[in-house]
Amino acid sequence: MEAPRFKEARRAYGFDEIAIAPGSVTINPDQTTTEFSIDGMTMTMPILAAAMDAIVSPSFAAKFDDLGGLAVMNLEGVQTRYDDPDAMLGEIIDAPKEEATNVLQRVYTAPIREELVGERVEEIKSSGAKCAVSVTPASTKRLAPVAVEAGADTIVVQSTVTTARHVSKSKRGLVFSDLLETINVPVLVGNCVSYDVALELMEAGIHGVLVGIGPGAACTTREVTGVGVPQVTATIDCAAARDEHHRRTGRYVPIITDGGIRTGGDMCKAFACGADAVMIGTPLAQSEEAPGRGHNWGMASPHPALPRGVRVDVGVTGSLEEILYGPTSKTDGTQNLMGALEVCMSMIGAFDIRDMHSADIIIAPSIKTEGKRHQLEQGTY
Amino acid sequence: MEAPRFKEARRAYGFDEIAIAPGSVTINPDQTTTEFSIDGMTMTMPILAAAMDAIVSPSFAAKFDDLGGLAVMNLEGVQTRYDDPDAMLGEIIDAPKEEATNVLQRVYTAPIREELVGERVEEIKSSGAKCAVSVTPASTKRLAPVAVEAGADTIVVQSTVTTARHVSKSKRGLVFSDLLETINVPVLVGNCVSYDVALELMEAGIHGVLVGIGPGAACTTREVTGVGVPQVTATIDCAAARDEHHRRTGRYVPIITDGGIRTGGDMCKAFACGADAVMIGTPLAQSEEAPGRGHNWGMASPHPALPRGVRVDVGVTGSLEEILYGPTSKTDGTQNLMGALEVCMSMIGAFDIRDMHSADIIIAPSIKTEGKRHQLEQGTY
Amino acid sequence: MEAPRFKEARRAYGFDEIAIAPGSVTINPDQTTTEFSIDGMTMTMPILAAAMDAIVSPSFAAKFDDLGGLAVMNLEGVQTRYDDPDAMLGEIIDAPKEEATNVLQRVYTAPIREELVGERVEEIKSSGAKCAVSVTPASTKRLAPVAVEAGADTIVVQSTVTTARHVSKSKRGLVFSDLLETINVPVLVGNCVSYDVALELMEAGIHGVLVGIGPGAACTTREVTGVGVPQVTATIDCAAARDEHHRRTGRYVPIITDGGIRTGGDMCKAFACGADAVMIGTPLAQSEEAPGRGHNWGMASPHPALPRGVRVDVGVTGSLEEILYGPTSKTDGTQNLMGALEVCMSMIGAFDIRDMHSADIIIAPSIKTEGKRHQLEQGTY
Amino acid sequence: MEAPRFKEARRAYGFDEIAIAPGSVTINPDQTTTEFSIDGMTMTMPILAAAMDAIVSPSFAAKFDDLGGLAVMNLEGVQTRYDDPDAMLGEIIDAPKEEATNVLQRVYTAPIREELVGERVEEIKSSGAKCAVSVTPASTKRLAPVAVEAGADTIVVQSTVTTARHVSKSKRGLVFSDLLETINVPVLVGNCVSYDVALELMEAGIHGVLVGIGPGAACTTREVTGVGVPQVTATIDCAAARDEHHRRTGRYVPIITDGGIRTGGDMCKAFACGADAVMIGTPLAQSEEAPGRGHNWGMASPHPALPRGVRVDVGVTGSLEEILYGPTSKTDGTQNLMGALEVCMSMIGAFDIRDMHSADIIIAPSIKTEGKRHQLEQGTY
Repeated sequence: MEAPRFKEARRAYGFDEIAIAPGSVTINPDQTTTEFSIDGMTMTMPILAAAMDAIVSPSFAAKFDDLGGLAVMNLEGVQTRYDDPDAMLGEIIDAPKEEATNVLQRVYTAPIREELVGERVEEIKSSGAKCAVSVTPASTKRLAPVAVEAGADTIVVQSTVTTARHVSKSKRGLVFSDLLETINVPVLVGNCVSYDVALELMEAGIHGVLVGIGPGAACTTREVTGVGVPQVTATIDCAAARDEHHRRTGRYVPIITDGGIRTGGDMCKAFACGADAVMIGTPLAQSEEAPGRGHNWGMASPHPALPRGVRVDVGVTGSLEEILYGPTSKTDGTQNLMGALEVCMSMIGAFDIRDMHSADIIIAPSIKTEGKRHQLEQGTY
Repeated sequence: MEAPRFKEARRAYGFDEIAIAPGSVTINPDQTTTEFSIDGMTMTMPILAAAMDAIVSPSFAAKFDDLGGLAVMNLEGVQTRYDDPDAMLGEIIDAPKEEATNVLQRVYTAPIREELVGERVEEIKSSGAKCAVSVTPASTKRLAPVAVEAGADTIVVQSTVTTARHVSKSKRGLVFSDLLETINVPVLVGNCVSYDVALELMEAGIHGVLVGIGPGAACTTREVTGVGVPQVTATIDCAAARDEHHRRTGRYVPIITDGGIRTGGDMCKAFACGADAVMIGTPLAQSEEAPGRGHNWGMASPHPALPRGVRVDVGVTGSLEEILYGPTSKTDGTQNLMGALEVCMSMIGAFDIRDMHSADIIIAPSIKTEGKRHQLEQGTY
Repeated sequence: MEAPRFKEARRAYGFDEIAIAPGSVTINPDQTTTEFSIDGMTMTMPILAAAMDAIVSPSFAAKFDDLGGLAVMNLEGVQTRYDDPDAMLGEIIDAPKEEATNVLQRVYTAPIREELVGERVEEIKSSGAKCAVSVTPASTKRLAPVAVEAGADTIVVQSTVTTARHVSKSKRGLVFSDLLETINVPVLVGNCVSYDVALELMEAGIHGVLVGIGPGAACTTREVTGVGVPQVTATIDCAAARDEHHRRTGRYVPIITDGGIRTGGDMCKAFACGADAVMIGTPLAQSEEAPGRGHNWGMASPHPALPRGVRVDVGVTGSLEEILYGPTSKTDGTQNLMGALEVCMSMIGAFDIRDMHSADIIIAPSIKTEGKRHQLEQGTY
Repeated sequence: MEAPRFKEARRAYGFDEIAIAPGSVTINPDQTTTEFSIDGMTMTMPILAAAMDAIVSPSFAAKFDDLGGLAVMNLEGVQTRYDDPDAMLGEIIDAPKEEATNVLQRVYTAPIREELVGERVEEIKSSGAKCAVSVTPASTKRLAPVAVEAGADTIVVQSTVTTARHVSKSKRGLVFSDLLETINVPVLVGNCVSYDVALELMEAGIHGVLVGIGPGAACTTREVTGVGVPQVTATIDCAAARDEHHRRTGRYVPIITDGGIRTGGDMCKAFACGADAVMIGTPLAQSEEAPGRGHNWGMASPHPALPRGVRVDVGVTGSLEEILYGPTSKTDGTQNLMGALEVCMSMIGAFDIRDMHSADIIIAPSIKTEGKRHQLEQGTY
């Protein structure tokens, strides 16, 4: 007689639930390097700017490249729907709070114009910066070749949930191996969260995997649909796929943790969990250089009757340089992300990002500590 | 020498503590179907409206049937105690907050009149809708045949805690196999939460099991008596009983998770845990069509000296159609439940509800995330 | 080479972290009995009133006996230090909030007078009630015989932490087997929390064990000294000792869970964990009959430089009868404790308290649920 | 075929998550001793005052020695940078809240003057007190000999994260075995949190290890860099190293838990986890004798672009004697730390601090209890 089968669930963890344990050796910060490479293209800063209209405009992309990172421009947002994207950004930003969602829904119904795709890419390239652009799977065949022809250095194919196999009644899903034969620049794909999907994408030949579903601050996926995986577990699982793929093939496909990173501490934890780079949103939306001027909003939702992302007031807290390299008098970890990374590497004895993958992590919820910190700041402790 | 025996306890989980992991395959939303059947009677929406006076009136039942679901009318509430139930609903709704519980206690002391049972059932049937009605075990022998004769399509026998075996001094408990010989419509029974009880009920021949004790918003069972089981664990355990019963007998008896579902995310999680349908209360009490006009209250408590359910202000948030099918600008998951379900099925690669039972679930408390979302909405993040 | 040894810790649980699972059989509430016996002395209600000056006076003891329970009078409080204890209670109650602790420290420095011990015991006996009195270990040899001679039916020897073996430089500690030879009434001893200590106390011949260190609302033990064990684990461990002692000797020594019980749900959980009775404080301090008139305060602390218990405003919420037997319109479980117990027994199929020991318990934190309940009560949900 | 490797994480615990279980034997408080020794130098109180400018001045050190403890003076703070340190302390204390961090950054840029090192040490010695001073690894070779020559009894080499091996490009890291040959007083080193590092430090011959990274109230390490280990786990791991080192060599090197201790309960838990002494900050910063006059601030951060510690208002709550030995009317554990320690030892049957290492600890989160306590204090419970 067979025993009845009860469904089981694995415990998953988010950034707030873990900490990094210091190493047995410490090193001087000046011994560390934070380089990150995608298929031979190297950045000095392992940070990608999220493909959101409130964050990456052509001028932001130029500045972000200057500072060593890689900004990803959304090819399906205001930049490619309007001749004057700044005017539309202004409409969104200036809308009263209660009308913001309606304005967002209206702004994003204008059609994407292929000639603007080329224009924006050239705008970025003319600044001397590397150009990365994002498309959704449904538009990839149409827009990616246009962007590459205009000079784009990297294509990011991104949707809420991506797999190597998509079932569709009306049309054949995007096949990544076909795509890679068509265009000759590195292709990053996401988002995914599991070992199996990450491995399958790597086997299809893509050059980088974006990791994370449902954890971001401007993302309502988990509340609305129940779907979501905390970033620590997602990163660990996809890092295992990368290492396995590397072991089998000798090819190292970087993974980029995307979503839920608010502080230097979050970013360092992502690396300790196995990330090769991170994609961040809110901390950059708070920079003086961000086109959202202290606001942020999510990408369009895939279902017409579901709400598109809400507009969030994130505030302007400093220049991009201060947020990335300091100096800062903020003690909550939201500024000087690269300084924090260097100090972390020093404390755990990591010479480069890949060394960080060997750091010990511990499960240590921060609920109580945060309560105390809050009281401290209020002067009531 | 025998070792001393220490009582052990199993960890149980609620909706807020889990998330659904996306699948290895994604599908287009238009490939999905959300059908649900009870003994051959098929609904296009796997949602039952809870048998609460503030939610299901005959006219609400007609509208809910229109939209594809099945509303359950309480046969022991105002509808069958008063010629003019709307007047009594008005009294409850219009009572000052501090007197509401007293008014509730008074309203529910009027006797149940059998002729009104027939009238209300006919009222629903005359609209063309399917008619489901609920009775408590103690009244089942008396009221269920009346309802069936008047045309009821389904009888729901529901009490806080139901088992197949009830011990009583004064009278013989309800025996479900006897009941099923008497009436010839499908019988749903609940509520239960365990593998053993669910299996025993299925073996008695009933046609559906309601799952859930103590998790609902208008339910004080756990606070008062200590009894309660979180819905994720309850659903998983009863789903295992259904699958075992199916394996043994070839008969598939659906389980319906009842209580604690507030958002599309909660509902999707119930399906991922093994539910075939859900019964919901508060989200429907918030519709313009609900007779409670923005209020809700629990069913009578089984003990005369214990408090009856408290009246709760839930507010009116939209039409029934908006709540079930959108469109919506709400991003907290309380509206467009069916849209959310389709998106979820798409992300986890489920063609129908039974496919959802194979989705992976993870344990991932949402406490921190919610805190962050809250801050976002306040603009303080 | 031996492996290094790391200290390990066991997870312990409190009432808020568990729930009771319903049984496979339900019974009618009128089939249940709630009797509780200590060495042949039987009460119809398995509740002891805590030996606190704000709760048990001679007149309260009489009323509590009437309702079926056993009140324990503190022999080292105002009742035995003052001819007119009501006057001193008045001083404590009427003191401004900021002076209450100082007043408490002053009031409890007056000496205990043996003649008052006899008087108070006779006062209780003359009402026809059973008389239980509490003493600390250090005063037991002196006060217990006086109380017994005056007619006390039970002696409760109670301190924050009690063991069968106490090491002292200046005097020989209290030896329970010696005590039992001296007095011929049942002796209850506490508080303890572990299997070993409970077993050792039972082997010394005592007639009941009080369980619980550090969980009560008016108790600061854990905050100040770090010592404390949550009640679920403490009750389970001591119940295992009782069962083991019973198996070895055939003698059944009841355990009484003392501290941290605020609601009917908490009380039912204590029984499901193995308690034979409960000792409660705050819910009784909230009765109209309690001498503290809506206030409560802890017993004297064992260390002269540590603070004595703080005075807490608990409010008056109803008559003793309403709190114990209802009716009530409160839905938070703080009233009609015995009604809640009957309903619980019905739902889990327990005919008597010892049947409750077989109920399944589950670990199911109530944090989220409480949040929701709170919102409900605020009308913001 | 090898299985893929997923990174694993160990669960770590903080003070708020554990409690101490009482023992099988209790003893009278007058039977206990709280002595603590470093390399033959004995204190009657196992408490070190943290090397922070807001806490330890020469006069504070004298008073703290009087009371039986050991105060550690920071050799790289205002005391050795300024002829008149009190004036600089005044500037920090009197700065408006929004300018405090800037003032801190300015004050700590003045150079450290070696002649002031000698002066301050002599100032402490002239009071008759034992003199302990702290230095960072980078300044140790320069400042430690000066301090020893002036009469310092103990050198504390302290940085956020210390290991026995530090890798540096520009200069050779501090080698502890070299240092120990140079100076002939006991050397305490920290901070560390792991078995391996603690053992390696002990093998290098140092005389005590400071345990704790990231848990303190004035420490932002974890928020900014993600690095941190809760104190319970850190203490247990380093205590295992001490016991292993003792087993191998017969040499007992005490460990001192440093950071995160706010109450008597926290301190007692540290001892139950294996600490030989504790280093505390905030509770002492709250004394009338502390030079910070109700304020506290962290030590300088190791990275120039990262924020230095924030100034925190901790308030003045009593005299040093009241905080350490009472009497007190505070019931939250923040005063009479030594009284609390004696009571704890009594309840767990520990004659001395090393006996406390054998106490059982349990995992028992205090979240709910604290909620209740809060309500109690508000009078809303």
